[in-house]
Amino acid sequence: MMFNGYNESLVDNIRAWLQEDVGSGDITTMTTIPEGHESKAIIHAKEAGIVAGIPVAELVFDIVDQSLSFKAYVRDGQWVDKGDVLAEIEGSTHRILTGERLALNLLQRLSGIATKTRAFVDALEGLPTRLVDTRKTTPGHRMLEKYAVRVGGGANHRFGLYDAVMIKDNHIKGAGGITQAVSRARSNIPHTMKIEVETESLEQVQEALTAGADIIMLDNMDPGMMAEAVHRIKTDAPHVTIEASGNVTLETVRTIAASGVDVISVGRLTYSFNSLDISLDLNAKKGGGTS
Amino acid sequence: MMFNGYNESLVDNIRAWLQEDVGSGDITTMTTIPEGHESKAIIHAKEAGIVAGIPVAELVFDIVDQSLSFKAYVRDGQWVDKGDVLAEIEGSTHRILTGERLALNLLQRLSGIATKTRAFVDALEGLPTRLVDTRKTTPGHRMLEKYAVRVGGGANHRFGLYDAVMIKDNHIKGAGGITQAVSRARSNIPHTMKIEVETESLEQVQEALTAGADIIMLDNMDPGMMAEAVHRIKTDAPHVTIEASGNVTLETVRTIAASGVDVISVGRLTYSFNSLDISLDLNAKKGGGTS
Amino acid sequence: MMFNGYNESLVDNIRAWLQEDVGSGDITTMTTIPEGHESKAIIHAKEAGIVAGIPVAELVFDIVDQSLSFKAYVRDGQWVDKGDVLAEIEGSTHRILTGERLALNLLQRLSGIATKTRAFVDALEGLPTRLVDTRKTTPGHRMLEKYAVRVGGGANHRFGLYDAVMIKDNHIKGAGGITQAVSRARSNIPHTMKIEVETESLEQVQEALTAGADIIMLDNMDPGMMAEAVHRIKTDAPHVTIEASGNVTLETVRTIAASGVDVISVGRLTYSFNSLDISLDLNAKKGGGTS
Amino acid sequence: MMFNGYNESLVDNIRAWLQEDVGSGDITTMTTIPEGHESKAIIHAKEAGIVAGIPVAELVFDIVDQSLSFKAYVRDGQWVDKGDVLAEIEGSTHRILTGERLALNLLQRLSGIATKTRAFVDALEGLPTRLVDTRKTTPGHRMLEKYAVRVGGGANHRFGLYDAVMIKDNHIKGAGGITQAVSRARSNIPHTMKIEVETESLEQVQEALTAGADIIMLDNMDPGMMAEAVHRIKTDAPHVTIEASGNVTLETVRTIAASGVDVISVGRLTYSFNSLDISLDLNAKKGGGTS
Amino acid sequence: MMFNGYNESLVDNIRAWLQEDVGSGDITTMTTIPEGHESKAIIHAKEAGIVAGIPVAELVFDIVDQSLSFKAYVRDGQWVDKGDVLAEIEGSTHRILTGERLALNLLQRLSGIATKTRAFVDALEGLPTRLVDTRKTTPGHRMLEKYAVRVGGGANHRFGLYDAVMIKDNHIKGAGGITQAVSRARSNIPHTMKIEVETESLEQVQEALTAGADIIMLDNMDPGMMAEAVHRIKTDAPHVTIEASGNVTLETVRTIAASGVDVISVGRLTYSFNSLDISLDLNAKKGGGTS
Amino acid sequence: MMFNGYNESLVDNIRAWLQEDVGSGDITTMTTIPEGHESKAIIHAKEAGIVAGIPVAELVFDIVDQSLSFKAYVRDGQWVDKGDVLAEIEGSTHRILTGERLALNLLQRLSGIATKTRAFVDALEGLPTRLVDTRKTTPGHRMLEKYAVRVGGGANHRFGLYDAVMIKDNHIKGAGGITQAVSRARSNIPHTMKIEVETESLEQVQEALTAGADIIMLDNMDPGMMAEAVHRIKTDAPHVTIEASGNVTLETVRTIAASGVDVISVGRLTYSFNSLDISLDLNAKKGGGTS
Repeated sequence: MMFNGYNESLVDNIRAWLQEDVGSGDITTMTTIPEGHESKAIIHAKEAGIVAGIPVAELVFDIVDQSLSFKAYVRDGQWVDKGDVLAEIEGSTHRILTGERLALNLLQRLSGIATKTRAFVDALEGLPTRLVDTRKTTPGHRMLEKYAVRVGGGANHRFGLYDAVMIKDNHIKGAGGITQAVSRARSNIPHTMKIEVETESLEQVQEALTAGADIIMLDNMDPGMMAEAVHRIKTDAPHVTIEASGNVTLETVRTIAASGVDVISVGRLTYSFNSLDISLDLNAKKGGGTS
Repeated sequence: MMFNGYNESLVDNIRAWLQEDVGSGDITTMTTIPEGHESKAIIHAKEAGIVAGIPVAELVFDIVDQSLSFKAYVRDGQWVDKGDVLAEIEGSTHRILTGERLALNLLQRLSGIATKTRAFVDALEGLPTRLVDTRKTTPGHRMLEKYAVRVGGGANHRFGLYDAVMIKDNHIKGAGGITQAVSRARSNIPHTMKIEVETESLEQVQEALTAGADIIMLDNMDPGMMAEAVHRIKTDAPHVTIEASGNVTLETVRTIAASGVDVISVGRLTYSFNSLDISLDLNAKKGGGTS
Repeated sequence: MMFNGYNESLVDNIRAWLQEDVGSGDITTMTTIPEGHESKAIIHAKEAGIVAGIPVAELVFDIVDQSLSFKAYVRDGQWVDKGDVLAEIEGSTHRILTGERLALNLLQRLSGIATKTRAFVDALEGLPTRLVDTRKTTPGHRMLEKYAVRVGGGANHRFGLYDAVMIKDNHIKGAGGITQAVSRARSNIPHTMKIEVETESLEQVQEALTAGADIIMLDNMDPGMMAEAVHRIKTDAPHVTIEASGNVTLETVRTIAASGVDVISVGRLTYSFNSLDISLDLNAKKGGGTS
Repeated sequence: MMFNGYNESLVDNIRAWLQEDVGSGDITTMTTIPEGHESKAIIHAKEAGIVAGIPVAELVFDIVDQSLSFKAYVRDGQWVDKGDVLAEIEGSTHRILTGERLALNLLQRLSGIATKTRAFVDALEGLPTRLVDTRKTTPGHRMLEKYAVRVGGGANHRFGLYDAVMIKDNHIKGAGGITQAVSRARSNIPHTMKIEVETESLEQVQEALTAGADIIMLDNMDPGMMAEAVHRIKTDAPHVTIEASGNVTLETVRTIAASGVDVISVGRLTYSFNSLDISLDLNAKKGGGTS
Repeated sequence: MMFNGYNESLVDNIRAWLQEDVGSGDITTMTTIPEGHESKAIIHAKEAGIVAGIPVAELVFDIVDQSLSFKAYVRDGQWVDKGDVLAEIEGSTHRILTGERLALNLLQRLSGIATKTRAFVDALEGLPTRLVDTRKTTPGHRMLEKYAVRVGGGANHRFGLYDAVMIKDNHIKGAGGITQAVSRARSNIPHTMKIEVETESLEQVQEALTAGADIIMLDNMDPGMMAEAVHRIKTDAPHVTIEASGNVTLETVRTIAASGVDVISVGRLTYSFNSLDISLDLNAKKGGGTS
Repeated sequence: MMFNGYNESLVDNIRAWLQEDVGSGDITTMTTIPEGHESKAIIHAKEAGIVAGIPVAELVFDIVDQSLSFKAYVRDGQWVDKGDVLAEIEGSTHRILTGERLALNLLQRLSGIATKTRAFVDALEGLPTRLVDTRKTTPGHRMLEKYAVRVGGGANHRFGLYDAVMIKDNHIKGAGGITQAVSRARSNIPHTMKIEVETESLEQVQEALTAGADIIMLDNMDPGMMAEAVHRIKTDAPHVTIEASGNVTLETVRTIAASGVDVISVGRLTYSFNSLDISLDLNAKKGGGTS
């Protein structure tokens, strides 16, 4: 999902998520507010950060009711301050309130991820290192969360188990070694696919190089081992991509990058996060019934 | 979803979440590990906390392959320390690795929520106050996250827009006042349903009392106003339930409870969290082919 | 579903119901009538009663073909006589005939339910008693049938197993008594939810009162016992709601109400009914092909 | 659906119908009855009639929980008296109660249809006339209701718009006449399909005969016209099937049959009905927890 | 599916087929072409044949993006030569390329089927024999492929197992003979349904005649036996339809027809085929971004 | 889908394909064969070829009825001769016949694809060239057809639009040139993904090389140009993979391979094919009712 392509499954997800919240009906809205009542509502930030998910929020309101108008005041990727208005929605008060919680829940989470990603990206300023995410995303939200990482200035690792080979510790055990694993994979995968090998020692790095890995991941290595691994790979196989991973924090990310790795992957971009505080207010009654 | 009832939609969700990760196939596992290979794997904690989601992880592996055996070593709600083994899975290495990431992503998130909830509950020790969650849950995960809150010792607020009336600021604007909102709701909802009103001032508290609310929520009130509101409600309408809400933290929760409210709702139980670090290791090759 | 809220699942149901009837294609219409043929059709009553389901019929035709125009001549809840025109549809003859049977099947059933409900409501004229439905609805049609009850002037009981606690005879047996059942429920349900207890004797009424039930249902009690039960509850716990149930007929409903109960629930509103006879006629050919 | 064939869509329907009732959880059962509690329950008739739907009820309980045991004491089509036990279910009390309402709602409706059908069939005793249903079935329940008609001794008309050509008044108008309608249909439908024409006058009967209809339906004709129509058809085209339809009641059905028609179709078999009163009782606690 | 009726399931299929190809996103289009870029594209034939599926291709592009304009230059059933333009699509380059492969895969296959059917129909020119398809269609594509057969000038056999009785060799074995099979079927099927019997010998033909089959299929008979079978059936039961089947080729079809059978069914119309070569070219850049 | 991994979507597809054929019921089987009747059936080849799809056929029968036993006599990839028995199924005659057509339709198509692939692979015997498929697969059948290609000895190209970048003529037009397209793609795709560029001239080959493509496809080049292109690529960028494509036939494939390309892709493996003739026969009645 990149918001510029066809995306049927996001629409299906939003429908299911609305169903989760609305169930047999938004009983409060339906019984307290007259049916023809219309409002203008604003979505505004209650703390500062990077916004992500404006088109998702728009899609939520569009799915709830195609006749709602949605006007964005900011674009994904923009920094907002407390009090800034992100968007304005106008139309049936019933429908605005029915979509409110889902739209906010998505905006808050995605903006939280983008904001954290931006902090990591800022810490790498001036370096050529690429910051990427992992598969430690919320089930059902992967394409959205990987989008939020891009919005925050990061890049994506593979999208799932289907679009790249990543040979990890457990596969090495199951295959009987890196050599066997790479060799078996190479002869069975499409020629369009790359092979990445996760390594924890210089011996494994050497074995991966010899086996012909396209990408070598240095997992949880200390600075000395990492430097030596980078040196060996760049010397022996300059077109191999080097990735570092494992407990990367805002404090350590620049030091890791300085070792010369091409890519750093950070699980905590998506598996622990603070939602950005965002709110919706009805601010102008525009009419309505008398019932 | 309480894990002791029929739950078709959780099964459907897990299928969709597997599909998100597996897509057209777990290419690494399928090409590196011989088809008949079997393993025993353990799931173990890499940091301390409350475990939640063991039956969910079991369900994931069961859906991937009914012939996998899953043996739990701990029960949801138990405190575990770093290094503790949570469960053991035995069977096809292919299927264990295919289900690994989803099972961990769920376990880590739910355990993170339960662990945070427990901290809040501990802060209320000895008080009769009930700690509850909100609707600020991850879209598609509400029943699971509300379950994790219970596992951590908390209780649940309403499940969605369908099972209780909660008249908030935006409804009051739309209805033209608390009095109108409560009155319209009362005559249109089933006699089995309660009405909660969110208030921000003593005037609103008074109006809600007069209108006959079953539950009155004190939203973001300062200690003085909250004490006065509690006093008035207990005096005038002793069977009305009092709920406090708004930026409740571990530091403030006990003070708020001391004001005499019956219930405290905490959005951050579910909308910002740290996953508990949990891992899966294949630890014993049990056979396999030679291909 | 209240026809003023978002309702995805009704759309899904109508699609499935059309599929049930149309299957691999409406072979008669497709082979006998030229493709471009257009008609104006009227829906008219063939017997007198309360109409319910006009917006549902409109939705059926809209789902079959968005370009059909649908003009309602009556509103749900209105009394119609034999011969009255309910609505007019204009557009592709193929599509009108494809949607005809489903639209009529729904209109006939919902109008039948509304008409019967109105008869019960009329029998209670001048009394404050609320007439409500039950969960004895047609599988897959609950929200529609509960809507038809409201259209007929009745109110709704709970919507399903998820939005209120109703402790019946079988739960009492399973829990070991009313006291245990109410106590367990109270400590495990959200504070936003009510507890109703079904009772068959004065002893049970007393136990439910002591246990703190919010609603007490008097099930199949004779007039004497019912009067005594109402008296005790009103004396001891004036804010408890009293519901009567069990083989309520048009002949007995007013007498039961006179006992002072707040609510009377009637299963036969939805589980036995006569469809209201309604028909669709093409009455004006407007063009068409020559093929 | 004949209960001896593969039927995926019935399973899907039952899942959706359970979801309608259970929603986010059977809160009463889950909070009042200990999780491990087991019961034996009986389903018994509270009035006399023909039973239909025993295998459907069994399927409901099987879908709720495969480990429930279901033992039928009667077979579909059998006459039962008040008090007769229809089936016994044994296992988790939670799951029995979760499935109870849906199982009963289906059994009651299908048995009501079978009972009414039997009354019509009995009225035709000794005559060769076939009694059949129509498409005036409950949306989503057609295959079940047509099954109930067979259980009651009737036969089925076509299953939907897809399996036979039925040229009705509206098609005749759209096609420009019976002759054109039959001719167009014949050249476009599979050679495996029959054509039925609905007629309201002797002229139409004649036109249908000449056009080569396989089945001629006499709609709402008075006895004289019907006798004459039957005579002409039998004389001119002995292998054409004759069907009578329109406001057939228990009082008139035998007279209509005596006119010599082959088939009588009766809409009211399914569009107005009385559910047969059937109940479920837990009658033996078999264990359970102490929580 | 006849393209002039309501068809929800084709829309669902196209969505699923797009999902199969697009998966988590059309990565090439999204990363190489600026988001606002627009194009005009043409679909053109790269070899001669009968076109089928233009409305299906239009539906594909409509589902990908409702704002694409699609202009057909030919109609289904038309003969096209190499180089002929079939249609023009205008709008977002992203969306055109995302739908391209699916639209072409469908057009190519359906046109291939129509072209082959036309060859068979041409071989029967001047004869009254009807050429029909079988159930040997591609799973999931039956209604489309049967439509392509009609486009090519053929007719359809039954649509599935649900709309006609076809008693084949395996049913005869299971039933214990043709007589039993026909008799059981007749008393259990709707009076609107026909019975076809597959025969391999003159004895079987005789038994089918006696049993009262509506259609008799002569399966794989040599010319002599076929002639004799046709003679007997026409003599004894002139209104019985005669169908020939079994390894019918372009070389043999006219000879078979000359035997006097009414219908010839040809499996290879759909189970072996050559796609018609059709291509899509962007031929005019109309704008686009600079990113 | 590789038949050794989790595959929910194949199960869903088979359910939908059964529904397409069975619809409202297999009326022939249900009405002609007694319900308890059991058979042993064999699936046998009626012509020689490579078998593919045995596990798919097994899955079909398993989905129809879990109690059917399925015993395979051959494995996918094996050559069979006319008359060879492929598998034996035992159990309910009803269910065997209900699944028959779908199982055969799949087996016939997949075996046809595998057989054709084998012919191409045989034509390349002794050469290191890899033979691969394309995205010109039957909508809804891609994973199955790509599996059949592997069974026949071929390899797979990318699985869809999501797992590799393939820059074709239309993308080059949209991007404004190969250089721009490759550069934009490289900075936006995951580092785990490769970029392939389709070229039609030596100039394009050079541009793709300079732009840094990972794979260069030579589209429809004549032998001279192809030889020169291969030479340049191997000289300048030895780790770039070279693919040839475009109207590859059994006659030309070996010559193309001799030019030194690494991979040859062949669309006609899947978009035109002959089904392998395979049949099912009931061969032993094992019991059954007398009804």
